[in-house]
Amino acid sequence: MRVSPEQLAALVAVVDHGTFDAAARHLSVSPSAVSQRIRALESRLGRVVVARSAPCRPTEAGRVLLRLARQQQLLEREALAELHAGEHTAVEVAVAVNADSLATWFARVLDACASWPDVTVRLHVEDQDHSAALLRSGAVLAAVTSDPVAVQGCAVERLGTMRYLPVAAPALARVHGGERGTDWAAMPVVRFNAKDDLQHRLLASRGVTVSPPTHVVPSSEGFVAAVRAGLGWGMVPREQLGDDLATGRLVRLGDAEAVDVPLHWQCWRLRSERLGRVSAAVRAAAAALHR
Amino acid sequence: MRVSPEQLAALVAVVDHGTFDAAARHLSVSPSAVSQRIRALESRLGRVVVARSAPCRPTEAGRVLLRLARQQQLLEREALAELHAGEHTAVEVAVAVNADSLATWFARVLDACASWPDVTVRLHVEDQDHSAALLRSGAVLAAVTSDPVAVQGCAVERLGTMRYLPVAAPALARVHGGERGTDWAAMPVVRFNAKDDLQHRLLASRGVTVSPPTHVVPSSEGFVAAVRAGLGWGMVPREQLGDDLATGRLVRLGDAEAVDVPLHWQCWRLRSERLGRVSAAVRAAAAALHR
Repeated sequence: MRVSPEQLAALVAVVDHGTFDAAARHLSVSPSAVSQRIRALESRLGRVVVARSAPCRPTEAGRVLLRLARQQQLLEREALAELHAGEHTAVEVAVAVNADSLATWFARVLDACASWPDVTVRLHVEDQDHSAALLRSGAVLAAVTSDPVAVQGCAVERLGTMRYLPVAAPALARVHGGERGTDWAAMPVVRFNAKDDLQHRLLASRGVTVSPPTHVVPSSEGFVAAVRAGLGWGMVPREQLGDDLATGRLVRLGDAEAVDVPLHWQCWRLRSERLGRVSAAVRAAAAALHR
Repeated sequence: MRVSPEQLAALVAVVDHGTFDAAARHLSVSPSAVSQRIRALESRLGRVVVARSAPCRPTEAGRVLLRLARQQQLLEREALAELHAGEHTAVEVAVAVNADSLATWFARVLDACASWPDVTVRLHVEDQDHSAALLRSGAVLAAVTSDPVAVQGCAVERLGTMRYLPVAAPALARVHGGERGTDWAAMPVVRFNAKDDLQHRLLASRGVTVSPPTHVVPSSEGFVAAVRAGLGWGMVPREQLGDDLATGRLVRLGDAEAVDVPLHWQCWRLRSERLGRVSAAVRAAAAALHR
């Protein structure tokens, strides 16, 4: 069975742009042409490839085709770019990165990319569960993730560890501190989202069984802003603290340990020069992490 | 038909925690008790309320019940808190906010909340399409959104406008500038996500029909970091620029206009003292926006 490049491109556009109309605009064809290509793909496969929801989502079969399409696309664009060497044809490299990395060391990867006219980056900010799905579907070619288990078809290498410190605004630490140390059961806590268990693991290790007042702020910089505002204590990446500890804007909750979260680079096994370059930039930027 | 509070609580826990097992742990009951309550709810209604997917998701009928549950919860907790006035019982107020607001003026709302021991905040960082769904489902009680159309049951008020300026790193602006002004078709551009059309609207108004090399960075602070790194130009909220224009770290692309995005506060019509206090803090913090 052969699948035509036009059909694959229609599938990619529908998933990327969410609707058949938006996909048609992107491809500069009519919506009915997009619809025909998708239906042709589906009748060849005998399976539905995209759920007509808002936005449209790939089915399991659609995801396999998407991965194929995106990998073919990268290789094809690179080959074309090589043939038109003078023209600096930009090729997109899609990468998933966790929010705390993007807020800290990963910004240096952007510095490197800025000097490459032949690469555009498409970042997905995702937690690790979702990263694996994005790698499997081919929506991203590589991911910064704490997950050390290689997704099938990917190589994985360790980048280092991100060190998180338990910190709070001085006023908050004073109210809930005392001679016997921090009153963990009473001091409000900030959480990134429902999957963020850094704070609650620390509470559990202290034998705290009640849940203290908990605020939820699902943005890396917003999280630090909330901790600085005194909303609650939180585990903050050391690199994100800047000089907050030196200036006394935040204090480290002294009777609790730092937590090291290992980070890995998962990358599709593809002979792509650009992907290799991005990987090298990620490795270089990650040199600032703990080993 | 009466729905028991236990059944509603089971539904809320299953949706909040994603699985029947996690909901059971949260409620300190057995997984089979959770399952029984959900099935009792469904047989009373004659409709499925939660899809047994991973994670579990509410159906249309389930969403109506969730809204009811969350509104009842807020009112009930407030009443209880009033009865136990000395104990500072914290009540959760869930709010949706767009990423650029959280990265700028909304941080001052967190400052206000930090002085209220009786409120915890649960932020959802969402674009406006999703905000409306969150309001309808009752997952949030209020939202900062650019959408001026009130969701049914909500009051809407205008907060002001966020002013976006077209900016770039000086080196990038130099390469793509010249006597005839900016070469918009060639200069790389940074986009927040597929729904962010601020940059492309400007390009369209300039008659640019080809798409320049486009990077995608879906984090408010990451977006500014990418523009500072020289990855591409972008529309950045004026408040987020700090002194970048004064110090020359970024330059304004002089031949393009600023874009004003109006922001609104959509809020459930509920007699909740805490929600009223959050609304007042949002209004005060938004005073820094353009009128």
